[in-house]
Amino acid sequence: MSKEITSREQDYSQWYNDLIIKAGLADYSAVRGCMVIKPYGFALWENIQSQLDKMFKETGHQNAYFPLFVPKSLFEAEEKNAEGFAKECAIVTHYRLKSDPENKGKLIVDPEAKLEEELVVRPTSEAIIWSTYKGWIQSYRDLPILINQWANVVRWEMRTRLFLRTTEFLWQEGHTAHATKKEAEEETVQMLNVYAEFAETYMAMPVVKGVKTENERFAGAVDTYCIEALMQDGKALQAGTSHFLGQNFAKAFDVKFADKENKLDYVWATSWGVSTRLIGGLVMAHSDDDGLILPPKLAPLQVVIVPIYKGDDQKQLIDEKVNALLKELKAAGVRVKYDDSDNNRPGWKFAEYEMKGVPVRIAIGARDLANNVVEVARRDTKEKMSYSIDGLSQNVIQLLEDIQITIFNKAKNFRDEHITKADTWEEFVKLLDEKTGFIAAHWDGTGETEDKIKELAKATIRCIPLDNQQEEGKCILTGKPSSQRVLFARAY
Amino acid sequence: MSKEITSREQDYSQWYNDLIIKAGLADYSAVRGCMVIKPYGFALWENIQSQLDKMFKETGHQNAYFPLFVPKSLFEAEEKNAEGFAKECAIVTHYRLKSDPENKGKLIVDPEAKLEEELVVRPTSEAIIWSTYKGWIQSYRDLPILINQWANVVRWEMRTRLFLRTTEFLWQEGHTAHATKKEAEEETVQMLNVYAEFAETYMAMPVVKGVKTENERFAGAVDTYCIEALMQDGKALQAGTSHFLGQNFAKAFDVKFADKENKLDYVWATSWGVSTRLIGGLVMAHSDDDGLILPPKLAPLQVVIVPIYKGDDQKQLIDEKVNALLKELKAAGVRVKYDDSDNNRPGWKFAEYEMKGVPVRIAIGARDLANNVVEVARRDTKEKMSYSIDGLSQNVIQLLEDIQITIFNKAKNFRDEHITKADTWEEFVKLLDEKTGFIAAHWDGTGETEDKIKELAKATIRCIPLDNQQEEGKCILTGKPSSQRVLFARAY
Repeated sequence: MSKEITSREQDYSQWYNDLIIKAGLADYSAVRGCMVIKPYGFALWENIQSQLDKMFKETGHQNAYFPLFVPKSLFEAEEKNAEGFAKECAIVTHYRLKSDPENKGKLIVDPEAKLEEELVVRPTSEAIIWSTYKGWIQSYRDLPILINQWANVVRWEMRTRLFLRTTEFLWQEGHTAHATKKEAEEETVQMLNVYAEFAETYMAMPVVKGVKTENERFAGAVDTYCIEALMQDGKALQAGTSHFLGQNFAKAFDVKFADKENKLDYVWATSWGVSTRLIGGLVMAHSDDDGLILPPKLAPLQVVIVPIYKGDDQKQLIDEKVNALLKELKAAGVRVKYDDSDNNRPGWKFAEYEMKGVPVRIAIGARDLANNVVEVARRDTKEKMSYSIDGLSQNVIQLLEDIQITIFNKAKNFRDEHITKADTWEEFVKLLDEKTGFIAAHWDGTGETEDKIKELAKATIRCIPLDNQQEEGKCILTGKPSSQRVLFARAY
Repeated sequence: MSKEITSREQDYSQWYNDLIIKAGLADYSAVRGCMVIKPYGFALWENIQSQLDKMFKETGHQNAYFPLFVPKSLFEAEEKNAEGFAKECAIVTHYRLKSDPENKGKLIVDPEAKLEEELVVRPTSEAIIWSTYKGWIQSYRDLPILINQWANVVRWEMRTRLFLRTTEFLWQEGHTAHATKKEAEEETVQMLNVYAEFAETYMAMPVVKGVKTENERFAGAVDTYCIEALMQDGKALQAGTSHFLGQNFAKAFDVKFADKENKLDYVWATSWGVSTRLIGGLVMAHSDDDGLILPPKLAPLQVVIVPIYKGDDQKQLIDEKVNALLKELKAAGVRVKYDDSDNNRPGWKFAEYEMKGVPVRIAIGARDLANNVVEVARRDTKEKMSYSIDGLSQNVIQLLEDIQITIFNKAKNFRDEHITKADTWEEFVKLLDEKTGFIAAHWDGTGETEDKIKELAKATIRCIPLDNQQEEGKCILTGKPSSQRVLFARAY
């Protein structure tokens, strides 16, 4: 019945692409590495946005908007940040096209409209924002500044994947300014916790909270905190990052404030972001070979009702019951649709809504009605149940809550089963190849060893978990002493 | 008391800039022609967005997202559209920076990272969207497509003004595809009506609905409908446009569909948009020399409460009353703030909230409490009233509704008084110079005359009003016969 999608076993990567396209989340575009987010995918993003936005505002942040372009001289001010992003920047060099004298109806870049200073299309906004904050901050009274922006950014990636890695993507980036180191550090951790709570409670996607090694740190940060999720193929996905930027950007843009004693000091900074990549993670964390499985809290459509009938009389009886149910469910805030279109048969609809990952499907037939029951199918387990029409809306709401928890627990069990200790190099590589998942192993703490492991085993250190257990051991590669295990994985 | 802003009489244009900056709506940026939208301005935009988005969804539209970049070959496909925007396009030509060998720590564009095909930063998205729709539309069953996107666009403007005309701006652009001309025309008018309703009901800004002359039409459109508002200086502002695109883009991108009889035809299109320019219009339509006047329906903050007290005992009594009031107002959905910060004195706060255009201010003093009253000041008329504490929240909600209507009526009276008929050229020019506003005058219907009038009088035809009265007359400039008056004005 269902549209053809490759199975996960056959080709996980192709399964993912098929799913994104056939469930109508996104489409390829005419622009290299950029995608079109289709209405169903965008509705998912809107639900993600609206919940995160609420959580940002509850923690005292306000939204604002800064320019898309960063003049090159500002872009290069914070050297590490500039160095980190220089290789993947789209650059605007001209501001006009003109008719091609040799080719009627065609246009060419007007060589006379060359910019004096090139503009970088923002890959991230620290530079443009801190050059602005300089004008806003004089004294401790101007602090903290707690700003977020929802925006598009561009990073010229060589290999792209729908949602997971695209040249242009949508994200939010928080940029805060503080009077003390302590306050900035607390902000960094607070936002990490917001991300983790969002991932687990709304996306039903368990995450490990940790800190990145120096090699994996955001360019320009003093510390990068992250949440790391595990996909069904055993690969890790960085789902969000929160950076403690120290005084790096304040120094690069000369942003000082006068404290209560009128002493000047550089301002402390954080930045933090999540992107449309979350949708890729959401898809890969839960879905199966029949299509998407979406957590009810974020699903654009939570319940679909399909009538099964012969003739207008039966249809009319079903309509009456359904209208009452729709009213109750909508009043309770449930996103519900009654699909009584007669373009397609029920079986087609069932497969279609399975593909789209609608958590609950209710089928109502004439015979069911006579028995005062309906057939309720849950997308996650594919279980079918007979529910009484009495109290149906309450039971459906309860079922949505159950599904949210069930898919979280399933993902969590999978994740927990896939954190494995390795104490020898052979074991380490074997686990990566065969069991996959996070490998907890000792590491000597050097970037050189980290690079070497990446080269040999294609695995990176995903994070040093917060509140990590301290334990004497020997580096998996070099045998040098180590005081704790870190989490390695192959990653998206 | 209030921060210095230039008065309207002294210099209207400077008054506007002062207001935007001092009320904290926006700031200049380091990027030529681009602005920073500050949190207070962005909160206004969020309120505009959320209401419009609701209205778009109620009329059956869904949001999606298309790439920021348009490959040059797609951009030039619809010739008129390309020609119209070619002169103001930011062009990406390279995708990498590298270290400057002659200047340590600096970056230069890497000449080896030149794009094979240049990318235009979207000034509008018809081209990229219709190149995508081609893949989505085969039959009448795929129609209509009713999509909107919230996005940033870039138009390289030579003279920029905060909100009114900026190189980058935020907007929404609807792009719909239809099986019939009639349906596309109805969509065009429907969205014009949505814009007009939004402008009048939410922005409290009366608008004239009309159609543009050929000269003023959107590049690539068959017809451009618009809403035109009048600012306090008597200049017109185009506040939104809705375009009937005919089959122009379908032809340019070869988008055909099979109808029920399996006959192939080109698809019919519309596009429609409003932008952050609305904020400029909102500011200029209502505000005065003391600051912003915002319509309650869109004001980020609708009510501010300021305590006036000596000592903790008085403060505590006031707090108790205010907390009860806050609870009632918040439960009713009112955006309210209790400003009991002791950094600033009440007089400073009064001036600050006047500058920011908060519609209602409540001052509560210890003596008032003894009399069971508070002082309520409305921002629009600056009237101060004594309100009983009994039933206060209900009366404040009523007052907000009154203010919304009052400022609309005030703007409407001003607008109606500034639509003046002119029957001779001398009269026409005198009215434009002295009375300002819309001048209703006959025009011979040619683009040449329109251009000449623009050159001589610096006025453009803002629109031919919908349901315009038909009336014999002679063109104001050429004396040639005309069948209706059109609305001229000097405009932003």
